[in-house]
Amino acid sequence: MRIAQVAPLYERVPPPGYGGIELVVGLVTDELVRRGHEVTLFASGDSQTLAALHSVHDRALRLDDRIREPGIYEMMQMSRVYEMAEAFDVIHSHIGCAALPYSGLVKTPTVHTLHGIFTADNSKIYRQCCQQPYISISEAQRDYSLGLNYLSTVYNGIDSNLYRFQAEPDAEEPYLAFVGRISPEKGPLQAIEVARRTGWTLKMAGKVDPVDREFYQEQVKPQIDGKQIQYLGEVSHLEKASLLAGAVATLFSITWREPFGLVMIESMACGTPVLAMAMGAAPEVVVDGRTGYLVNSIEEMVERVGRIETIRRQDCRDHVMRQFTVERMTDGYEAAYRAVLASRNGALSHRV
Amino acid sequence: MRIAQVAPLYERVPPPGYGGIELVVGLVTDELVRRGHEVTLFASGDSQTLAALHSVHDRALRLDDRIREPGIYEMMQMSRVYEMAEAFDVIHSHIGCAALPYSGLVKTPTVHTLHGIFTADNSKIYRQCCQQPYISISEAQRDYSLGLNYLSTVYNGIDSNLYRFQAEPDAEEPYLAFVGRISPEKGPLQAIEVARRTGWTLKMAGKVDPVDREFYQEQVKPQIDGKQIQYLGEVSHLEKASLLAGAVATLFSITWREPFGLVMIESMACGTPVLAMAMGAAPEVVVDGRTGYLVNSIEEMVERVGRIETIRRQDCRDHVMRQFTVERMTDGYEAAYRAVLASRNGALSHRV
Repeated sequence: MRIAQVAPLYERVPPPGYGGIELVVGLVTDELVRRGHEVTLFASGDSQTLAALHSVHDRALRLDDRIREPGIYEMMQMSRVYEMAEAFDVIHSHIGCAALPYSGLVKTPTVHTLHGIFTADNSKIYRQCCQQPYISISEAQRDYSLGLNYLSTVYNGIDSNLYRFQAEPDAEEPYLAFVGRISPEKGPLQAIEVARRTGWTLKMAGKVDPVDREFYQEQVKPQIDGKQIQYLGEVSHLEKASLLAGAVATLFSITWREPFGLVMIESMACGTPVLAMAMGAAPEVVVDGRTGYLVNSIEEMVERVGRIETIRRQDCRDHVMRQFTVERMTDGYEAAYRAVLASRNGALSHRV
Repeated sequence: MRIAQVAPLYERVPPPGYGGIELVVGLVTDELVRRGHEVTLFASGDSQTLAALHSVHDRALRLDDRIREPGIYEMMQMSRVYEMAEAFDVIHSHIGCAALPYSGLVKTPTVHTLHGIFTADNSKIYRQCCQQPYISISEAQRDYSLGLNYLSTVYNGIDSNLYRFQAEPDAEEPYLAFVGRISPEKGPLQAIEVARRTGWTLKMAGKVDPVDREFYQEQVKPQIDGKQIQYLGEVSHLEKASLLAGAVATLFSITWREPFGLVMIESMACGTPVLAMAMGAAPEVVVDGRTGYLVNSIEEMVERVGRIETIRRQDCRDHVMRQFTVERMTDGYEAAYRAVLASRNGALSHRV
């Protein structure tokens, strides 16, 4: 199959640090190439890929501070993708709603994977373009009031080789882990509260975005004592995997309906159970009582910390290997491409 | 001819106050309807037009503070315009580069009138799409290094009925006028300097955008004494026309290469000569020594104030009536549509 993958331009594919969408696009693109597809990746020029790379700018927009109008580069990318549309059997967009106005203008179908959330503004264009084929990354992400034509849910996957299974948490200095942006919606304050109330050590890692600087300075930083509450800053992949692997449990103490949450599968891939607020996709990712616990309050999370040793770490790893691998994700996307092409061909043959 | 006019969504068409692009779009749209064309205007839902109005939002985006992502509405507009493309013989875009990625995907040609300037970012998409048909609003606006396929220059026009000719300036309390945004590039400080050095009264009108608030507070406001230097704030059309009509001369003391400058033709339509910095489009709009003076420095502008009475006010009016009316502008656009359709048909018949 001739497949175009369209990634955001803000981070390179795969991203050097944070960047969930670009990570997922990189994994599925390379796996499709390995399966023999002819894949073209539209992404920033510093991306690393097994596919043919098409770029409108030599590096990730985030890294180029001469750029004042990032939207121009997205337009240029769209222009390139759709003027080349006939060279592809299917176009797979990961850039939210921005491909919607184009996809009705060419014969090649576009599959839109929605990685984000619906807002008051973008809901309007989704509703206007509801007949196009969509993929959700969790059931929880869907908003049925918009009437979108969902092909399926394809869960995010990871390269399980990059997460070493650790049969036991670190024995010396046991701790709970928190990995994620330090922002109110990821719940670092809630994680700190769980640590304080249980007496456990908490090791936190994750970047602080400019918009969250004040939140970090005023509410998080004063609680970091470097002993019970530790903050390691933005860490590399290896440091992150090691942090997750050594933990007794990972706290996924979100305060918003996160559409997926890669850190949950990264943690379980290392064998570390997850204590998650039962919001957003968490109930689809964590098996309550088997790979961690789903809770509805901080009180419940505190209580489950005491029961965490009943979770078998091998079950966590096995769950990821069954449900959340790059192979499984790519199976899902291949099936979606076949479905959209079959329905397209069906529609065409009806017309003839 | 079946014509789509595509306006920005920020202001309504025509705008209640400031909004040069929306004013021009409104004038040309209504005149095309009067000439018997079947015109569809894509603009904000509160627009007033003789054409069929298509809107993706009920009012000008500027007036709706619930909107967080204005780009979404532009996407929705583009989606509507281009999915309806077959209903038009020609699409006429006034929204800068945003229609470029779409226009190659449909059979109906798009003519792009460039109302703005080239930036480091947008130059890249113009260069990428240089073969599409462009209209410049002045010769000075062109950047030949981009290699754009210009059809012609079509100067902006005004409805001359809305500007009453005044054969003599106000005799009681004679003054110079300045009308424009109070921003560094429009040159209010330079106008004030000309007034101070000549001793003339200066009456200024124009809005202060949020980005220019500090400039206004720190540099302009301290110089306003309400006597020699007067600031009237943002004025209505009638107040503006009256202000221009009563002046001895209008100062167009720009510090940037303005691509057109409607206030020059508004002033001359009232009979008031223009003292303009010889930058951007000014040398194409003002006839030096006949409808005002073109100068290269504040010193020269000061000197020409002393010679302003040699300009005949009727010549100013006549110049606008010959060159810068809505009828003349619409002639230019009709010719451009015919040219692009002829070349399109020519190309098609060659292909057959």
